[in-house]
Amino acid sequence: MVEDLVVNLGDRSYPIHFGENLASAVAAELAGLRARGAKTVALADASLMDCQGRRLDAMMGETPRLIVPAGETSKSSQQLVEAWDFLAAQKMDRGGVVLVIGGGVVGDLGSFAAASFLRGVSFIQIPTTLLAMVDSSVGGKTGINLAAGKNLVGAFHQPRAVFIDTGFLQTLPPREFAAGLAEVIKYGLLGDETLFTQLERETLKPETANLAAVVRRCCAAKARIVEADEFETAASDGRALLNLGHTFAHAIEKVAGYSVYLHGEAVAIGLAAAARLSRDLELIDDTLVRRVERVLAAHALPTRLRGGLELGPLMEAMASDKKVRAGRLRFVVMEAVGRAATREDVPREIVESVWREVGVE
Amino acid sequence: MVEDLVVNLGDRSYPIHFGENLASAVAAELAGLRARGAKTVALADASLMDCQGRRLDAMMGETPRLIVPAGETSKSSQQLVEAWDFLAAQKMDRGGVVLVIGGGVVGDLGSFAAASFLRGVSFIQIPTTLLAMVDSSVGGKTGINLAAGKNLVGAFHQPRAVFIDTGFLQTLPPREFAAGLAEVIKYGLLGDETLFTQLERETLKPETANLAAVVRRCCAAKARIVEADEFETAASDGRALLNLGHTFAHAIEKVAGYSVYLHGEAVAIGLAAAARLSRDLELIDDTLVRRVERVLAAHALPTRLRGGLELGPLMEAMASDKKVRAGRLRFVVMEAVGRAATREDVPREIVESVWREVGVE
Repeated sequence: MVEDLVVNLGDRSYPIHFGENLASAVAAELAGLRARGAKTVALADASLMDCQGRRLDAMMGETPRLIVPAGETSKSSQQLVEAWDFLAAQKMDRGGVVLVIGGGVVGDLGSFAAASFLRGVSFIQIPTTLLAMVDSSVGGKTGINLAAGKNLVGAFHQPRAVFIDTGFLQTLPPREFAAGLAEVIKYGLLGDETLFTQLERETLKPETANLAAVVRRCCAAKARIVEADEFETAASDGRALLNLGHTFAHAIEKVAGYSVYLHGEAVAIGLAAAARLSRDLELIDDTLVRRVERVLAAHALPTRLRGGLELGPLMEAMASDKKVRAGRLRFVVMEAVGRAATREDVPREIVESVWREVGVE
Repeated sequence: MVEDLVVNLGDRSYPIHFGENLASAVAAELAGLRARGAKTVALADASLMDCQGRRLDAMMGETPRLIVPAGETSKSSQQLVEAWDFLAAQKMDRGGVVLVIGGGVVGDLGSFAAASFLRGVSFIQIPTTLLAMVDSSVGGKTGINLAAGKNLVGAFHQPRAVFIDTGFLQTLPPREFAAGLAEVIKYGLLGDETLFTQLERETLKPETANLAAVVRRCCAAKARIVEADEFETAASDGRALLNLGHTFAHAIEKVAGYSVYLHGEAVAIGLAAAARLSRDLELIDDTLVRRVERVLAAHALPTRLRGGLELGPLMEAMASDKKVRAGRLRFVVMEAVGRAATREDVPREIVESVWREVGVE
């Protein structure tokens, strides 16, 4: 039994519940809401209907549902409009609650639909991938992609509760499980040396006994950072630290096309790149670069590009990343295992050299 | 010279500047922003390019601009996606500022695009219709319509500054000017007896000498209400009071189609309906109903439907209004000139009877 975690954000605080089967807890929450007169509707990831249909049915019951096609291409303006139209057709009102069940794609899309419908209705998040559990269930970031880039549109909107049911991980494809581990490794690198060395000793698997505890540890790490910098307004460090590896990752996803690398795979390559960047800036030595690459590889994650990507478009994509302020690229660098910082003065030559090291042609 | 008004919302406070020609003031503001390295882009209403092209050019200079087609149909998800794509193409970043120039349609659309792009970028609002000046320039409500209803999607997002240039009113079509007066009359009715009696004595025209002062008076009235209830969370009264006449108006616009009645015309009929509703609830007497209708008519505003609308669809539209909480319709009623209140217990028969009085078939 893993204890609840409370994300403390004043009047936007909310609990995260952990368990190996939370279907009846979710159903009870919905029944309670309806008993108080609240409308409830659900948005759920299509891929779950096949392999976790029973769990989903137990959670949702008769709740009207919109099934969203699986995959990053659903995080689009077209799918957003469909979600808005669904909420309107269900006559969702300001007292209603949207249940958002799925991985990062349905999570980000559904929570942004809730954030923007009627200028914000309440939602409950049920992340079903490891990546969504450790990353998007804390922080209140919601949004969609545009053709021009990832997460270019969105809002900050906190859920009223999160249910993390690790039972969903039993049917998660191994490639997606590994992708989630990239973010777990990231938490170790940016702020939790104990977690990182634990990952070096023992490779995490869906059947690992303490998995829910590891997930909670990641959520708690993220919660501490988000609580201190909810709207990412800190001039340095703060919430931006969570982007360790992500400036590279976003460029990879954008240039390769969003369906080629899973987000976590791009993040894994981004972490390897961030380690090399930090070494080139003489912040860490090559031993740590090798440790980072070893732990990524042990968790079935890539540390180099598969090829086919060119430097020009990647650098261009970085320049259009939304982390850019007044034209200056911001990187998160490593200073040690468990210590990261933001840097804005990284020479272009170093970035280009790192790209070549991770396999740019 | 009309004094600046400051809307006090803590760290989201902003000034409203008033004047008969603010082109050089806006141009100077933009130049200052660019000098500090901020990107600037503009969204402007197409209809202004013809009749106020010189004023707009003087304001915008070389600022990249997206011209938005005039009319309520532009407050759509398609036009929103076009605005997002424009911001992305211009590489708008978090330090940038969007200039939004137009009436309520471009104002609501452009400010929601700014609110949601990169989870919120800064914007400057330049309302160019009387309605936008007295209504949408205060309050931070942004949004678009869906097929299912008006303003169903949006966000709260305060501008960094508003410039109210009454020079724009000189070329405003008389029908649109009158539509704006409906909201002016509303402010009198809901909280400013002096304003209402002034409107009874003297019909406002574009050439009225104290027009900027009247606009400021409306903005100040709205600011006081918004400051006390920024996110419309008050259980009763509060920001909801601003919806005097609007539960009827939204239903009229939705059932008639958004291009048939101007918003202000629907509000005028809605004010007449709200007065009749208040009389039927025995809150005011028939004398006040007649005063309301007289002042509306004197300002070239309708007090009855043109015909062709049926009761069923209007009642249905009211039930899907976003002011509905847990299925209960909320009305704003008049208790006297300058005093309004919210009511949730209005019998359906009274609402239906009022609809018939204002011309439902």
